[in-house]
Amino acid sequence: MPEDGHSYEAAGVSIERGDRAAALMRSAVEATHGPEVVGGTGGFAGLYALSGMEDPVLASTMDGVGTKTVVAREVGRYDTLGADIVNHCANDVLATGARPLLFLDYLASGRLDPEAVAVVVRGAAEVCKELGISLIGGETAEMPGMYGEGDMEIVGCCVGACERSEVVTGEEVRAGDAVIGLPSSGLHTNGYTLARKVIEDAGISYSDTPEPLECTVGEAYLEPHRAYVREIEALRETVEVRGMAHITGGGLPGNLPRSPGGLGARLDASSWEEPAVFTMIRSLGNIPEDEMRRVFNLGVGFCVVVSAADVDQALGILREMKCEAWRIGEAVGEEGVRFA
Amino acid sequence: MPEDGHSYEAAGVSIERGDRAAALMRSAVEATHGPEVVGGTGGFAGLYALSGMEDPVLASTMDGVGTKTVVAREVGRYDTLGADIVNHCANDVLATGARPLLFLDYLASGRLDPEAVAVVVRGAAEVCKELGISLIGGETAEMPGMYGEGDMEIVGCCVGACERSEVVTGEEVRAGDAVIGLPSSGLHTNGYTLARKVIEDAGISYSDTPEPLECTVGEAYLEPHRAYVREIEALRETVEVRGMAHITGGGLPGNLPRSPGGLGARLDASSWEEPAVFTMIRSLGNIPEDEMRRVFNLGVGFCVVVSAADVDQALGILREMKCEAWRIGEAVGEEGVRFA
Repeated sequence: MPEDGHSYEAAGVSIERGDRAAALMRSAVEATHGPEVVGGTGGFAGLYALSGMEDPVLASTMDGVGTKTVVAREVGRYDTLGADIVNHCANDVLATGARPLLFLDYLASGRLDPEAVAVVVRGAAEVCKELGISLIGGETAEMPGMYGEGDMEIVGCCVGACERSEVVTGEEVRAGDAVIGLPSSGLHTNGYTLARKVIEDAGISYSDTPEPLECTVGEAYLEPHRAYVREIEALRETVEVRGMAHITGGGLPGNLPRSPGGLGARLDASSWEEPAVFTMIRSLGNIPEDEMRRVFNLGVGFCVVVSAADVDQALGILREMKCEAWRIGEAVGEEGVRFA
Repeated sequence: MPEDGHSYEAAGVSIERGDRAAALMRSAVEATHGPEVVGGTGGFAGLYALSGMEDPVLASTMDGVGTKTVVAREVGRYDTLGADIVNHCANDVLATGARPLLFLDYLASGRLDPEAVAVVVRGAAEVCKELGISLIGGETAEMPGMYGEGDMEIVGCCVGACERSEVVTGEEVRAGDAVIGLPSSGLHTNGYTLARKVIEDAGISYSDTPEPLECTVGEAYLEPHRAYVREIEALRETVEVRGMAHITGGGLPGNLPRSPGGLGARLDASSWEEPAVFTMIRSLGNIPEDEMRRVFNLGVGFCVVVSAADVDQALGILREMKCEAWRIGEAVGEEGVRFA
């Protein structure tokens, strides 16, 4: 049954391609395993020992990279998609106050291309290793009835944990608190349906370099999703972080209020630097500003809310980590996000 | 960005369809939440308090239902797919010795059909509630470039936990131990590419009832994946379970040896009852026995290994739970699975 190959324990009709993919990725995957991974790969589920915690809360999230995979197929480059899916999921876990601990991937295509699969999983494993996340399991599915031969669906699941007292609910946010924006690297994994349509309608190819880009459209569109794990860890060692938001589908207006405590904010849209890729999309597609804000992160990939008294210290800590963050606005009593 | 709608926090171009799907599923999803779910739905990650454990080990798995969704589309019935994905993932967690605790789903299609999505997620939620699993998060993706309008990809992730001392590695298995087979309900979620091809090649439709079936092919093929959570819990209260295997892609030969401790077995293929659907597939497709065994579970959905002294008690406990299990063979010193 071709749909049933396991990434690290391939089975079925695709056993040859599954085995080849597994062989190509195994050492990179195993390099993410510390002593907390119990029993290695190939079991029915990945085992991870959660030691030394008093009152642990697990944080779990599942997400896909969306049609960024279509861009990858058209450009013929899959090496950044692993970072995309890990960082997308890890940042979601991070926004709850938890530390991302383990990751699982699901890759599906019409015909398993062992090299492409291995490139994606090795990319995921590299980022996992950097961030101290164990890549603990995965599934590679081959479904000729569902996907085109070159199509690849990429889904990830990240599980993290923290003490109950460390959960950031947003309930501590007070009107007047500062909203700090951390820079995105570009589109991250959101808005690709619109981003692709704009290019297509304008008759521009992924190898073109339209104004004001300084790289090709393909390079700009495949820039990997940035992780904020290290930055937020450093910040929380010193500063009280009262709220966090990962800016994904829905943009700033859709995501700032997702912090469970609720959060209204007034933002100054001129306070941060917009990457050229968004300027290009807005201008080529003649997209209204409201739509731009609801579809794209526009340069702010993650937000933290701190008291006004802590904002300079917070910005200093981020700057030391080469993270050029901005004070982009403040928390307000009324619901919703408004732009000044 | 239509690809970015969140099941329970819809966003993007598909906001109307996403909101409708979320409204249709919300109460069923929330009914799976006990006090261990922290903060409800809509946050960046689902939070679950893991209390009262000394030395917890997490077990995580990610899987899809494969092209069983293609059968569902052709039959026009999606209500069993939720049970499929939850039970597939939960049984994988179970096979490590852990208790399944939380579940996340990912649904993707070319155009979000709110009713179909809600039917799948409500089906998943119902099974989660029965098994004491919290449905803690999900993502609904709309990707017109990747999927056909009626296509639906269904992926799940299940996380469980147990004390480190409760992990079942298979290392305790000794030659001469008994292998008990628990009955499957049919194909479960494996072998659909071959099962569909056999029907297609024979010119049989899903509404036909070929010999020896007593229901239509559509009904037989959509019979939901069976869960073994309650049975295994009851068994482990009384009997020492030394090894477990969830029989998915790869069949008995592919899955019995996946228990991390390794396990060779000699099985008696006449010792259990084969559901009619497999007999039909073998005969219609003229499929060699070796292929049947590597593609399908052939009636055994889950295996437990117990000492020969415990086998009658184990079978009695299962029988009391209306689980007509069989002693299907024994553990042997040599690697691999052989059939007598």
